[in-house]
Amino acid sequence: MNNFEYFNPTRIVFGQGTIANLKHLVPPSASVLMLYGGGSIKRNGVYEQVVSALTGRNIIEFAGIEPNPDYDTLMKAILLGREKGVDFVLAVGGGSVIDGAKLVAAGIPYRGNAVWDIVTKETAIKLGDALPLGTVLTLPATASEMNGTSVISRRSTEEKVAWASEAVFPLFSILDPTTTFSLPIKQVRNGIVDAYAHVLEQYATYPVDALLQDRQAEGILLTLQEIGEDALKTPPDYATRANFMWAATSALNKLINKGVPEDWATHMIGHELTAFYGIDHAESLAVVMPYLFWHQRQYKADKLVQYARRVWGLSGEGEAVIRAGLDQMIQFFNRLGMPTKLTDFDIDPDDAAERIRARFESRQVLLGERNHLNPDMVAEILRMSR
Amino acid sequence: MNNFEYFNPTRIVFGQGTIANLKHLVPPSASVLMLYGGGSIKRNGVYEQVVSALTGRNIIEFAGIEPNPDYDTLMKAILLGREKGVDFVLAVGGGSVIDGAKLVAAGIPYRGNAVWDIVTKETAIKLGDALPLGTVLTLPATASEMNGTSVISRRSTEEKVAWASEAVFPLFSILDPTTTFSLPIKQVRNGIVDAYAHVLEQYATYPVDALLQDRQAEGILLTLQEIGEDALKTPPDYATRANFMWAATSALNKLINKGVPEDWATHMIGHELTAFYGIDHAESLAVVMPYLFWHQRQYKADKLVQYARRVWGLSGEGEAVIRAGLDQMIQFFNRLGMPTKLTDFDIDPDDAAERIRARFESRQVLLGERNHLNPDMVAEILRMSR
Repeated sequence: MNNFEYFNPTRIVFGQGTIANLKHLVPPSASVLMLYGGGSIKRNGVYEQVVSALTGRNIIEFAGIEPNPDYDTLMKAILLGREKGVDFVLAVGGGSVIDGAKLVAAGIPYRGNAVWDIVTKETAIKLGDALPLGTVLTLPATASEMNGTSVISRRSTEEKVAWASEAVFPLFSILDPTTTFSLPIKQVRNGIVDAYAHVLEQYATYPVDALLQDRQAEGILLTLQEIGEDALKTPPDYATRANFMWAATSALNKLINKGVPEDWATHMIGHELTAFYGIDHAESLAVVMPYLFWHQRQYKADKLVQYARRVWGLSGEGEAVIRAGLDQMIQFFNRLGMPTKLTDFDIDPDDAAERIRARFESRQVLLGERNHLNPDMVAEILRMSR
Repeated sequence: MNNFEYFNPTRIVFGQGTIANLKHLVPPSASVLMLYGGGSIKRNGVYEQVVSALTGRNIIEFAGIEPNPDYDTLMKAILLGREKGVDFVLAVGGGSVIDGAKLVAAGIPYRGNAVWDIVTKETAIKLGDALPLGTVLTLPATASEMNGTSVISRRSTEEKVAWASEAVFPLFSILDPTTTFSLPIKQVRNGIVDAYAHVLEQYATYPVDALLQDRQAEGILLTLQEIGEDALKTPPDYATRANFMWAATSALNKLINKGVPEDWATHMIGHELTAFYGIDHAESLAVVMPYLFWHQRQYKADKLVQYARRVWGLSGEGEAVIRAGLDQMIQFFNRLGMPTKLTDFDIDPDDAAERIRARFESRQVLLGERNHLNPDMVAEILRMSR
């Protein structure tokens, strides 16, 4: 087991009816900048519950945080927050709204020259430098509600940057599974696949004798498999959605990666597929991961065998059981209605391979837990997705 | 899944050599009250490492915190800390030292009439009211290093009270597995059984559709089983001890109990056995739990079947597989050198049954996740331990 540090001060308030707890969680005298997205919270009743629980506080609303939150949009929210003198930020939505709110909470009190420095300079802010941030999660997938990570896009300069700071862990996050009841089924499917892939990025590398972390990761995978298909049914079932929500948070709240190597190559390649072809983030993961793992099987062998045996109950040795485990993964994604080949999206694997190879080549990027996955190997992997 | 709140702000610093990190974790200007126990840290080098890392700070030492830390001892530490004007408390030791340090950290700045009120009145202190507390763990077992719970004994009045407050979560805890290398093997054995029992108290109740929490609990049990016998070998193996340490912390850092019922009857009965007969805490758990679970099998059936199947890989149905699972538990404890019958300690089960029945009768105590385990049932359980 590698040495590690674990720190996660976010208070999770979980369960049906817990949005009402905002009245205890947000100081009575707070001036709150409330951030949300495209307005779905006005259609599903979440907006009403939030505003009702915040009775007595001064609320400044900022709507329109887009998927892959944009720096220019967030700067508008920061300037509004400064102008109105807010002292609390509340994000109501999914990962994009929460990621954006982290920059807003850090940006409002920031005294540096450019807020963009927060995103690009690790030392720009430290614990205590951001406004307190609360979240009401409505779309389980990214676990941004329980970590200090944020991904910000800057469309004007074609940048997309992940940053992290202890300063922007949410003070609290409210997870009410009923808020997911009105989600389009496609978003539930995407959330399950995204969470599943998050776990595997932290698990399917090489063993370092981190026995408990392996079990914790396998437990999340087994849970997602257990509830996956039921989570897509209507009417939604509370227990199923509750397990989905807690599993998605647990997949990336930075517990299971303690003391172990991490991969994230699938995510890096997936980001490029989303940028070039506009497929959803979770879709991009499903058309890469099974092929990347097979391509890298000689380096990931121990973990892929363990995955097949413990998570799918398969027996057998070596490549045969690895192949069988990956086939189970593909079939699981397919049962959720998730395509697993680039060709399912009418994307030419050769075209994708060449474009993304060139992109990584120009940026001299090497991927994976061993930092050895080069652009040519990425191209080989993408050509397999057919 | 029941509604729940999760909050755990302790920073864990894990791994070989991490005691040196004290120099970053404790403010350079701090005046530190350093608490420890009987002096084993002076024999195993931990004391030297701590003092060396704290170079430059004012250190006030208070040694002699006993197992089951005593209120009168802790009051002496509190008065010393007030006299010297300390602003930081550092616990170096196991669960007893850390439990005691929590009261000391809360007691030094406490302005109420009697420090004992902190232990008995839930509202006596709140988040932010205690001095910052850091810990260097040397004995994995209680997880006090990563929770807000403390058990204080008051020998002068024959009281032993468990209390909890968000104010006394350690600010940080350093977990260096090499600090366990000099532990007597009996203490390692006790730590494994204690952690194993902690998990089962939160797991072996009745199902509430908390699928992930079940998997997390099973993962800790499997890990303890995986490393248990190896952890007793000499020379100690780093990876084995690291897994033991992280599993013991994870067993009671209040993650796996989120949204699920809890039992704790074995602990309540065990406390009385320790009080009457002086057997170790872990020993008391091992001579109660297997019989209590069998006695309560009609109420715990679903979970005991799941335990047998998932944790021991057994097949079968109903009472047969429950019995086989509990037999596996007993054999596991025995393989660790842990006795599992009162008679192994020359304790008469009838005598224990009568004494403890009377004790619970007089206090009108009902135990267990259904609050239905009455003193007569406790007596029946103890009579089975032969």
